[in-house]
Amino acid sequence: MSTYNITVLAGDGIGPEVVSQATRVFDKISQVNPSIKFNLIDKLFGGCAIDATGEPLPSDTLESCRSSDAVLMGSVGGPKWGPSSPIRPEQGILALRKSLNLFANIRPASFASDSLLAFTPLKEEVAIGTDVIILRELTGGIYFGKRQEADANGYAFDTMEYSKSEVERIARVAAELALSYNPPLPVHSIDKANVLATSRLWRKTVTELYAKEYPQLSLDHQYVDSASMFLVNNPRRLNGVALMENLFGDILSDEASVIPGALGLLPSSSLSAVPSKDKRTFGLHEPIGGSAPDIAGQGIANPVGTILSAALLLRYSLGLHAEAAAVELAVRRVLDDKQIGGHGLRTGDLGGSTKTVEFGNAVIEEL
Amino acid sequence: MSTYNITVLAGDGIGPEVVSQATRVFDKISQVNPSIKFNLIDKLFGGCAIDATGEPLPSDTLESCRSSDAVLMGSVGGPKWGPSSPIRPEQGILALRKSLNLFANIRPASFASDSLLAFTPLKEEVAIGTDVIILRELTGGIYFGKRQEADANGYAFDTMEYSKSEVERIARVAAELALSYNPPLPVHSIDKANVLATSRLWRKTVTELYAKEYPQLSLDHQYVDSASMFLVNNPRRLNGVALMENLFGDILSDEASVIPGALGLLPSSSLSAVPSKDKRTFGLHEPIGGSAPDIAGQGIANPVGTILSAALLLRYSLGLHAEAAAVELAVRRVLDDKQIGGHGLRTGDLGGSTKTVEFGNAVIEEL
Ligand SMILES: CC(C)[C@H](C(=O)O)[C@@H](O)C(=O)O
Ligand SMILES: CC(C)[C@H](C(=O)O)[C@@H](O)C(=O)O
Repeated sequence: MSTYNITVLAGDGIGPEVVSQATRVFDKISQVNPSIKFNLIDKLFGGCAIDATGEPLPSDTLESCRSSDAVLMGSVGGPKWGPSSPIRPEQGILALRKSLNLFANIRPASFASDSLLAFTPLKEEVAIGTDVIILRELTGGIYFGKRQEADANGYAFDTMEYSKSEVERIARVAAELALSYNPPLPVHSIDKANVLATSRLWRKTVTELYAKEYPQLSLDHQYVDSASMFLVNNPRRLNGVALMENLFGDILSDEASVIPGALGLLPSSSLSAVPSKDKRTFGLHEPIGGSAPDIAGQGIANPVGTILSAALLLRYSLGLHAEAAAVELAVRRVLDDKQIGGHGLRTGDLGGSTKTVEFGNAVIEEL
Repeated sequence: MSTYNITVLAGDGIGPEVVSQATRVFDKISQVNPSIKFNLIDKLFGGCAIDATGEPLPSDTLESCRSSDAVLMGSVGGPKWGPSSPIRPEQGILALRKSLNLFANIRPASFASDSLLAFTPLKEEVAIGTDVIILRELTGGIYFGKRQEADANGYAFDTMEYSKSEVERIARVAAELALSYNPPLPVHSIDKANVLATSRLWRKTVTELYAKEYPQLSLDHQYVDSASMFLVNNPRRLNGVALMENLFGDILSDEASVIPGALGLLPSSSLSAVPSKDKRTFGLHEPIGGSAPDIAGQGIANPVGTILSAALLLRYSLGLHAEAAAVELAVRRVLDDKQIGGHGLRTGDLGGSTKTVEFGNAVIEEL
């Protein structure tokens, strides 16, 4: 009998609605296999935490995350806590990443079902088969370097900083991710080594590490500007693991995330250690879509990204590989068109009228 | 009688081939209007300059650029001077930009002819009507800030630096560009103000400048990660002038440049002052496609981007507005499908077999 503690940060906007469909998945797994128990602990984070406590990341929330096996997040933010507010949810996001040492952000961009190809903004023949896992370094670089707000002369700066050990540990995550597939995935390291010193460090470190420890992996290097073109005109060119530093990962992961047609479809994981098949890696798992305040409370948000985030949680943080795969298969079946044996359910973002709960019902049924 | 001095940096790879079609356009204009004379001065730059002189930007080349009214460039670089070479063409590019104070890089992404819609990697209904002018700050930011190569501890950094006056002058270029259209274009300022101090300076400076000097313009602010999504799933959302700092501009201008279907189609201008209708602004004008070493010397490269760069040179640096428009119209006619009265010519990059010279012939004929 195993009990897993999961801190649930439903957050703002559609967060609570989509999270509640993902937590049903945990219940269902326990029901099917009573030796697995999940202890779900709800905590405040983001805008709702600012309203209740004055800060986006209350210490009680952080403590709960720290003592859990994994964190499941919904989404945070909204117009109420916009750019002009003194305290903003973003501050909580950055503090949470740093406090929990979530240095490895995994953002797959692929089609949960081929039936979704119609929704990609790319020509279908360009998008088909896209299967890029963006791996973004999440606790270094210009996000956490020394910076100065504009001084009296109107001069400001930010510092992009990296150390060899930071690059090595994220490069190891890329390698282990690549090796967890059979055959192993190619690794594309993305940088701007023709301009930046940190990128030259990045390229050299990755090259040397792979030569020594992962000679069996295929590794290439791309400039970030070229990579941003490939994602539009030939995304399959980056199939595999696309490894990059924090700011490049921010821009390119969002760029990649619109290929599969709707933001609400995609999951993400942020891990605090190099994952491996036989180890449980602490992490925070969340859909990549925003809090969508315009449709919050209507029960029409797309829960797919959140349910798939629960699958990643099961895989990476709890080591429940079979259960993770079962959840992914269930989601695929619900998305597959009826002609190929699926349910063909579509929420509003995909032009359908399936409600969030109805979608959840179908996933539970498939499980 | 006006004589204009133009330094021509044909460069490497396909550079000389595409540039020679653009210089024919200058000859033709002189023929039609003998009161306009062009004095074309060929100089070495890039890989060919490294081979001949040991440096990518010989002082003689820089002097010629300095004493000219404008510079026309082909393309530079190639495998011969790759990442592992001690002296590389990129160093020349960055030195040239800084030495000539080319702080304003204008990169339009639009369809030179609607007949090219078939070539976009986006769904045609997503791409149609895309008309985004990326305006990239080109001599500041992390490209020219203080940096440190990896030290003994394997620590490296780069600094993104901006001053209020640097932001103001590029924001003025955006405004003047927007105002040169009737009705004026909207300006979208792109930053990462939720994280970076330089972006907060950027947003504040642009906001205050426009409130004071350009209240008639429509201005909005987007985060760089959102903007990179818009370019894929709704590029018309950024129609107008998209204003951004150097590194963001590097990534997003390349991303935008693949929307029109082939890199060889697009021109660019880098200016050293705020342009205006009645002023001539020194600048360097070049196609955005690379040196394409794989097809160099075969006479099959697409000259459109270079010919359109000559048009931008005529407009911004020589104030020859009618001539610039005539060149653009001629190019459009040559690209337009036959059914709508065009020549329907397509070079190899667009699946056709028109040679570089044949394309040039047709443009000259149309002029
Ligand atoms: C909210 C913001 C600070 C954050 C980031 O830039 O990392 C977001 O864009 C993301 O990608 O998770
Ligand atoms: C060659 C390189 C230094 C350059 C840049 O990054 O500015 C190029 O990518 C460009 O966009 O002109």
